[in-house]
Amino acid sequence: MLLSDNISPDFVKSLDLAGKKQLCEEIRAFLIEDVSRTGGHLASNLGTVELSVALHSVFSTPGDKIVFDVGHQSYTHKLITGRYDKFRSLRSKDGISGFPRNDESEHDAFIGGHSSISVSAALGIAKAMHLKGEDGSVIAVIGDGALTGGEAYEGLNNIGRDMSNLIVILNDNEMSISRSKGTVAEYLTRMRSSRSYYDKKEAVKEFLSHTEVGKELSKSISGTKDLVKFAIYQSNIFESLGLKYYGPVNGHDLGKLIEILEIAKITNEPCIVHIKTKKGKGYKPAELNSGEYHGISARSRPGLRSRSFSEIAGVTLLHIASEDDRICAVTAAMKYATGLEHIAKAYPERFFDVGIAEQHGLTFCCGLASQGMIPVYAVYSTFLQRCFDQIVHDASIEKKHIVLFVDRAGFVGEDGETHHGIYDVPMLSSVRYTEIWSPYDETTLKLCIDRAIYHSDGIAAVRYPRGLCPAGGNTGYSDFYIAAGGSDTLVVTYGRLAVTARETENADILTLLKIYPVPEKAVEAALGYKRVLFFEESMKSGGIGEKFLAALYERGFRGEYRITAITAPAAAADVDIQLAEAGFDLEGFDRIIRNEE
Amino acid sequence: MLLSDNISPDFVKSLDLAGKKQLCEEIRAFLIEDVSRTGGHLASNLGTVELSVALHSVFSTPGDKIVFDVGHQSYTHKLITGRYDKFRSLRSKDGISGFPRNDESEHDAFIGGHSSISVSAALGIAKAMHLKGEDGSVIAVIGDGALTGGEAYEGLNNIGRDMSNLIVILNDNEMSISRSKGTVAEYLTRMRSSRSYYDKKEAVKEFLSHTEVGKELSKSISGTKDLVKFAIYQSNIFESLGLKYYGPVNGHDLGKLIEILEIAKITNEPCIVHIKTKKGKGYKPAELNSGEYHGISARSRPGLRSRSFSEIAGVTLLHIASEDDRICAVTAAMKYATGLEHIAKAYPERFFDVGIAEQHGLTFCCGLASQGMIPVYAVYSTFLQRCFDQIVHDASIEKKHIVLFVDRAGFVGEDGETHHGIYDVPMLSSVRYTEIWSPYDETTLKLCIDRAIYHSDGIAAVRYPRGLCPAGGNTGYSDFYIAAGGSDTLVVTYGRLAVTARETENADILTLLKIYPVPEKAVEAALGYKRVLFFEESMKSGGIGEKFLAALYERGFRGEYRITAITAPAAAADVDIQLAEAGFDLEGFDRIIRNEE
Repeated sequence: MLLSDNISPDFVKSLDLAGKKQLCEEIRAFLIEDVSRTGGHLASNLGTVELSVALHSVFSTPGDKIVFDVGHQSYTHKLITGRYDKFRSLRSKDGISGFPRNDESEHDAFIGGHSSISVSAALGIAKAMHLKGEDGSVIAVIGDGALTGGEAYEGLNNIGRDMSNLIVILNDNEMSISRSKGTVAEYLTRMRSSRSYYDKKEAVKEFLSHTEVGKELSKSISGTKDLVKFAIYQSNIFESLGLKYYGPVNGHDLGKLIEILEIAKITNEPCIVHIKTKKGKGYKPAELNSGEYHGISARSRPGLRSRSFSEIAGVTLLHIASEDDRICAVTAAMKYATGLEHIAKAYPERFFDVGIAEQHGLTFCCGLASQGMIPVYAVYSTFLQRCFDQIVHDASIEKKHIVLFVDRAGFVGEDGETHHGIYDVPMLSSVRYTEIWSPYDETTLKLCIDRAIYHSDGIAAVRYPRGLCPAGGNTGYSDFYIAAGGSDTLVVTYGRLAVTARETENADILTLLKIYPVPEKAVEAALGYKRVLFFEESMKSGGIGEKFLAALYERGFRGEYRITAITAPAAAADVDIQLAEAGFDLEGFDRIIRNEE
Repeated sequence: MLLSDNISPDFVKSLDLAGKKQLCEEIRAFLIEDVSRTGGHLASNLGTVELSVALHSVFSTPGDKIVFDVGHQSYTHKLITGRYDKFRSLRSKDGISGFPRNDESEHDAFIGGHSSISVSAALGIAKAMHLKGEDGSVIAVIGDGALTGGEAYEGLNNIGRDMSNLIVILNDNEMSISRSKGTVAEYLTRMRSSRSYYDKKEAVKEFLSHTEVGKELSKSISGTKDLVKFAIYQSNIFESLGLKYYGPVNGHDLGKLIEILEIAKITNEPCIVHIKTKKGKGYKPAELNSGEYHGISARSRPGLRSRSFSEIAGVTLLHIASEDDRICAVTAAMKYATGLEHIAKAYPERFFDVGIAEQHGLTFCCGLASQGMIPVYAVYSTFLQRCFDQIVHDASIEKKHIVLFVDRAGFVGEDGETHHGIYDVPMLSSVRYTEIWSPYDETTLKLCIDRAIYHSDGIAAVRYPRGLCPAGGNTGYSDFYIAAGGSDTLVVTYGRLAVTARETENADILTLLKIYPVPEKAVEAALGYKRVLFFEESMKSGGIGEKFLAALYERGFRGEYRITAITAPAAAADVDIQLAEAGFDLEGFDRIIRNEE
């Protein structure tokens, strides 16, 4: 076995090609075995085994910097750079992150939880190294899915000719999380199928061209460029943008990968290396259905369909859409995860997957809304952060009616700091013409969706967490519910915390269904209490707790008031651990109610 | 005179080519005369006179939809569509907006204050029209500057082959606000200079190809496509993306413009029309220096250099950078407006203009910071909204030290609703590891810049308004200042409102310099007052006023508390009018202090 505690970048470099190939197979077997147990992103990581080994064969981190665009690609890199023995702790409490983290290892040049930032980060790193007079290459590894995000293009557009130490590796696995969307994806498909511009002869020529003797030799090898070749060459979009292009190369051919990376390393201008990989490579179930194996959780295996908030939201939307042909559904590469596959199947003409392009998705919704359609944009809370400006400018100023299904609100568990949905409440509640609902079970989820679609004329958000949705009872809609038992203490909360709060016996409970604007009658109902304790699964600063106090105070409340909310994003762990550590379990509620902390 | 009250789209259509040309000249003269008086975006609007007349010759709004990407292009369109007699009210109180507004006219298909959204909005509109079975073309008019924004690319990438009624007009004026940056700009330059693929013969062929007889004729006209032509054709980046391309066309040749728009209109697939225009066309001073004439204000003519907050911030940064080579300055196409031209001139290697690409700019700063540099990102508050996710993900989670010069904070005057800096405080103050300073004169501006750069290790923002900066006195740094005269009423405020507040004689005044996190000692100082009145030039919901109350309350304050803050973005007007109407003038302060409203 080559894969052991002793694995390191130096060890990888010491192996011959055969040894490296063996190491790849061992890593692949390890990932299949281990990620199945710990949960994580299997398919995408199986696609980048050879690439990671090749990168560490050619480059030396941390002197050279590798910026992985989202961690779906970085597991092999993590194994090689000192985290083999910690791999069983992947994505769990006190364990290693499922994403690159510079504070976890100096070999991870930049944080990588959100998509499409790698080129921009790499440019900043490269410029800083240049200013400090440091040598070393800066490599951005970006998938074709991440390439559909606008910031990736902004980054590519800002590559200057002088950034000679910059290498962009386009890891083209023919799909993003479900399937790459749009014309760039189609373009890459055409490029893949129609040509293979890179070949050994060219590589040799490139090598030679860096020496004076080589340049002379090169001339005689190359012959004349004919027009056909020129035409093919010119059809390359990256070269249209003025970037040196190598590829496409088979990303599972380790020898060829190492060769092309060696060339890229010595190329005296910024370049793009286009490699073709297969998601799930080497593991048949994942190869055949890499969408399903994109992220697998240790607890819920594929096939075990759960009744999650997302699923119920998706089915509910399908039913509404069947009776109202103004309803449109929009997602940014999260069709399955947000439960929109149902409407996509039944009403494909009213379903739009815009790819990883959250900004476009929001403006697109506003375009639909401007013509009388009712767009429903299902997006993770953490990714909604990408379109704050569009919410303000495109939606709010002229009061367009768009509906947001804010999925993965609150703590998300194993994905950790980068993925929590804890900023949507401060963000949305600062914007005029916004209403936010926060259901906690199936009944209230359906009620809130109805309110958002039909009883709002501005930006209407329904936020709900990742995970299973309790069934709920026969409640009619109200902006809030109060369970009063004569206590002088009132707990005010919303969302999934309401389910926990109801188990406590030491306080009356006010559950907000509409959390913003804060319902006036809910404020009035709270006025009679000596103590009001606000629990909130969202950032404290800018949260509803502050607004509830302001409203209470204005109406004369002068009792005890306390907010328990999130002040820091929780590290990766089981979501129940994250909730408990934030004081959001029954014990935590009771401690606060009994004034024990 | 053709230009009169009677001008309308139908009137434009009724003119022959000579008449239309005359109209263009009259409009041009009107703009030069009128915009010089009212203020507005002169140069860019002079560039699109012929385009607008051509659009209204070929298309019929509001059935056809024209989406202008920022209003710098829409004045002629506004003149033609019923707003000639209101033009003297441009950008002033109760007047017409300087940007397209759907709530101002049905002829403005979509709001257009922020950049790079037109393609996405047009796609939403086109899809909705398709779903509703409506005919009509949807035209997005986007400048080459706006094309550098990532959302424009997300939009282009989402154009489906089926969107036959979509036309994207690339208004290529060889520069954005100062100069288009990046490889796309270079690419357009190459395309402009190297070829003119479109010609009359091609146009005729296109026309013919839409009829059966025409198709036969066309074959005989066209001859064979030779390889050179193929090569040139293939080098087109838009066609690489699978979009039909027409151009480049001289955007001041009205006849040719009308002809190519007619072709685009009947083209049975989505297409891009590339037109070349000249900013400031027809007005020599603006042609020669269109950067200076980009936006002109009625009050401050070019040449009258004022000591604005931006200017002082820029000069201060220059001085710091001269003694600290870790300082880098980054802007997104706002070099002059943010005062960064000084550092750009003195230390070009540490100055980066990333173009209209706010997301990239933020991540790029984080890349610089990860290598020990101190990046200062000067950006308008309203455009900072574009990079909220990058602030959370790239900067906050691993606590990178980046400095934000948040320019144009608060009301901005004539640009109106789309441009106010009223969301930066809620946005930034919800993010962990963020500190915000709000200076109000030259002395405090310099103090705050020093604090942000050298006394913070996270995200450090200095927010200041558009306009002249008072000189200030010999103050040393403190998080806050209190002017106590024995009143039982305390006014708490920050930023430019502090200058006004100090004129009141009826209350003690607490001025926050560090506004977030709220300084504890400032809260303590406020505890002894019976009444605390918080004035804030920012959105009320999520603002500092709510946080100040929460902090006061926790420490036992039970007196009167009142927040006066912004609840709606003000319409275009002189900034003094906007401030007064929000209660932010001396009279307004006094009314609140005397409890008169």
